[in-house]
Amino acid sequence: MEKIGRTKIVDLLKREDIGAMVNVKGWVRTRRGSKQVNFIALNDGSTINNVQIVVDLANFDEEMLKLITTGACISVNGVMVESVGSGQKVEVQAKEIEVLGTCDNTYPLQKKGHSMEFLREIAHLRPRTNTFGAVFRIRHNMAIAIHKFFHEKGFFYFHTPIITGSDCEGAGQMFQVTTMNLYDLKKDERGSISYDDDFFGKQASLTVSGQLEGELAATALGAIYTFGPTFRAENSNTPRHLAEFWMIEPEVAFNDIADNMDLAEEFIKYCVKWALDNCADDVKFLNDMFDKGLIERLQGVLKDDFVRLPYTDGIKILEDAVAKGHKFEFPVYWGVDLASEHERYLVEEHFKRPVILTDYPKEIKAFYMKQNEDGKTVRAMDVLFPKIGEIIGGSEREADYNKLMTRIEEMHIPMKDMWWYLDTRKFGTCPHSGFGLGFERLLLFVTGMSNIRDVIPFPRTPRNADF
Amino acid sequence: MEKIGRTKIVDLLKREDIGAMVNVKGWVRTRRGSKQVNFIALNDGSTINNVQIVVDLANFDEEMLKLITTGACISVNGVMVESVGSGQKVEVQAKEIEVLGTCDNTYPLQKKGHSMEFLREIAHLRPRTNTFGAVFRIRHNMAIAIHKFFHEKGFFYFHTPIITGSDCEGAGQMFQVTTMNLYDLKKDERGSISYDDDFFGKQASLTVSGQLEGELAATALGAIYTFGPTFRAENSNTPRHLAEFWMIEPEVAFNDIADNMDLAEEFIKYCVKWALDNCADDVKFLNDMFDKGLIERLQGVLKDDFVRLPYTDGIKILEDAVAKGHKFEFPVYWGVDLASEHERYLVEEHFKRPVILTDYPKEIKAFYMKQNEDGKTVRAMDVLFPKIGEIIGGSEREADYNKLMTRIEEMHIPMKDMWWYLDTRKFGTCPHSGFGLGFERLLLFVTGMSNIRDVIPFPRTPRNADF
Repeated sequence: MEKIGRTKIVDLLKREDIGAMVNVKGWVRTRRGSKQVNFIALNDGSTINNVQIVVDLANFDEEMLKLITTGACISVNGVMVESVGSGQKVEVQAKEIEVLGTCDNTYPLQKKGHSMEFLREIAHLRPRTNTFGAVFRIRHNMAIAIHKFFHEKGFFYFHTPIITGSDCEGAGQMFQVTTMNLYDLKKDERGSISYDDDFFGKQASLTVSGQLEGELAATALGAIYTFGPTFRAENSNTPRHLAEFWMIEPEVAFNDIADNMDLAEEFIKYCVKWALDNCADDVKFLNDMFDKGLIERLQGVLKDDFVRLPYTDGIKILEDAVAKGHKFEFPVYWGVDLASEHERYLVEEHFKRPVILTDYPKEIKAFYMKQNEDGKTVRAMDVLFPKIGEIIGGSEREADYNKLMTRIEEMHIPMKDMWWYLDTRKFGTCPHSGFGLGFERLLLFVTGMSNIRDVIPFPRTPRNADF
Repeated sequence: MEKIGRTKIVDLLKREDIGAMVNVKGWVRTRRGSKQVNFIALNDGSTINNVQIVVDLANFDEEMLKLITTGACISVNGVMVESVGSGQKVEVQAKEIEVLGTCDNTYPLQKKGHSMEFLREIAHLRPRTNTFGAVFRIRHNMAIAIHKFFHEKGFFYFHTPIITGSDCEGAGQMFQVTTMNLYDLKKDERGSISYDDDFFGKQASLTVSGQLEGELAATALGAIYTFGPTFRAENSNTPRHLAEFWMIEPEVAFNDIADNMDLAEEFIKYCVKWALDNCADDVKFLNDMFDKGLIERLQGVLKDDFVRLPYTDGIKILEDAVAKGHKFEFPVYWGVDLASEHERYLVEEHFKRPVILTDYPKEIKAFYMKQNEDGKTVRAMDVLFPKIGEIIGGSEREADYNKLMTRIEEMHIPMKDMWWYLDTRKFGTCPHSGFGLGFERLLLFVTGMSNIRDVIPFPRTPRNADF
């Protein structure tokens, strides 16, 4: 076969030099046609769009043609011609075809219309489907948008540790990491397991958040963000929970809560706009196939300023709704940790746009949040989104050493290993703020998928660490 | 204090509007001067350069001035004036100063000239030093360069799992991940630990490489790269080993080993050029303080094409060197896994530029590498760099199902959980190639640092998971 430089399908479909000899390689999605002419829909993963390969059967070996089945990998040399029927501007008139990899009828993706549950069981193959190709290209683009946004603002990407010796933030149950021989655990005289022989010489876990280390970096480099995996060992089998997920956590010296809200709003709008601008084909596919309101919802977020509302005012609105007969599953009262239904009522019913709720009761928020002067609330801020509920959670941090220590004692936070965190307040403390975005929450919003297991390549959930 | 929008120091030092009122915030590096005038070197982490704050003592409260010590955090309103003595074009004549955070004399970074060992013990504060500020700004920039390079080439960033149920690549010892109560381990009738109660219902570990899952993605999306943490539980206390480190692993459908070499060379040159172009101040600082040959070495890598040489020819060169009297610590013979001294001889002494060594004996390489027709070698490629030795390791992958299975059996690789990997060769297999770059290896090269613990914020090594 003549050697011609390969053109990716995403690029080929944009070319206008009709008549050129081209080479395309990819996987056969479908093959149909008559006894004279066959049409192969070929996809190489570079785009959701297939290129149509037109095969004049008389020019090719019959045995070779038999191998061109759904899932087979082929290389095609041919002439680029204008297309009328393929849905694209161009198609390829095949001159030479080489079968690189055959695919027999045990291939699980032969037919279309598999359930999402079945596709999760073959997560190693599902990136070959239109749906997951679209989702993972969008996932890539969201990661790029995130890095680009922060880099252009002068933030530094900072790698906080994955394995940690401290269990402090209390954000959730942790996975233990060990190299000990579980058949021969050493114990001390009091019967406690001796971690002296473990790899790190002490008990170690997987991180639940990079925030505390992020604060160390922000009070040195000024403005940083993390983007890495975090872990929760909660036995939650829901469409919203993963045991392993990716988080983005910016942390900024000298930002107060108002700056923090500005940053969060600008950031998430940037990501959503990036998806609309750079993933149009994939977003349209998901809109048409799964979620007819997707594009409208994405555009809706960009349109208006987010509402900024104290928690106390939010509770009043919800109480008014109850008084007027609106039924919530969970009760509404000052001090309650809002449920998703409450958040979505504020966003979808009341304001009809995203809401940043601030100044939550201190009892339902973490120890490190800056205390307000009312003695009751802290400078927390949660960004609430349509369909998703809370998509970002953040706060201005308590910069005062004594106030922070008091809160830590009140909340019985185990701080014995946390001297390093407190040093930030001891040596040149500064006002600072930050927030966390669960990457997969963002992806649920941007792709319109309804199960978080479908926006990460290989979901880790209770009883599932396959692939 | 009058409210003026803050200017980051990196931006301030570029401004030319002399006479403007500005606000800067940051941490005091040094303070010196006479009884009339003091000079504060202020740094905010946005750049290695300090801005000089000129303080006319008569205009300020004496008690406040006492708080302006090394490490203190201050906010300064002042007039931007031309500077003669500060080493910068501009400095700030202070009008108002607010002390945001004091810093007493227990601050460990009072004096300069701490040992790297001591700074590792205070890894929570070392980003505030010139050296680690420079290293971590470069680290950020290298991450950005990597994402930019691959994004612009149409690769998709793909998140392979961190927690894995398979232990197959054999790349190293693994950390076990568990939620079991180690005081109450359940055993089955044969005395084996029963993982039925563990979070994933089976034994799980931290990944040593995302490559195998990366191949799944490449054979669907065409071209992908990973960039995530990987783990080795090896008890190696050396300046070159970390238990937790970050890897970049591109994997590309339809690339053969020559394409793979082109990609690796273009990629690493892009990163090095990015450092020279975008981190000039930080690289110059490290060059001047730690490694006088750094900039020359970086420029050297960009100058020439990398040598491409079969392993067999490399061995001949090394054997010739031995014959001529060159002393190596480790023996040289065909079949040996080259030591760093061998690699560096080829690069630094013989060719005086980077070398890509190819076609290694199959016995010293992984099972998934494409077998050459000689029956002895595989299409491996290692990129060897001055000072570092191997910086990239990769190969064309074995695409043939039967050849791959034979090799797996020969090497006694436990494949029971690997049906999903083999499916790539069963269903539409294609030629493909990829490589892995240890991010911290790249950083050692680009920063000139000599210990890998000094290029990652919080190193994890045997007996160390602090912060």
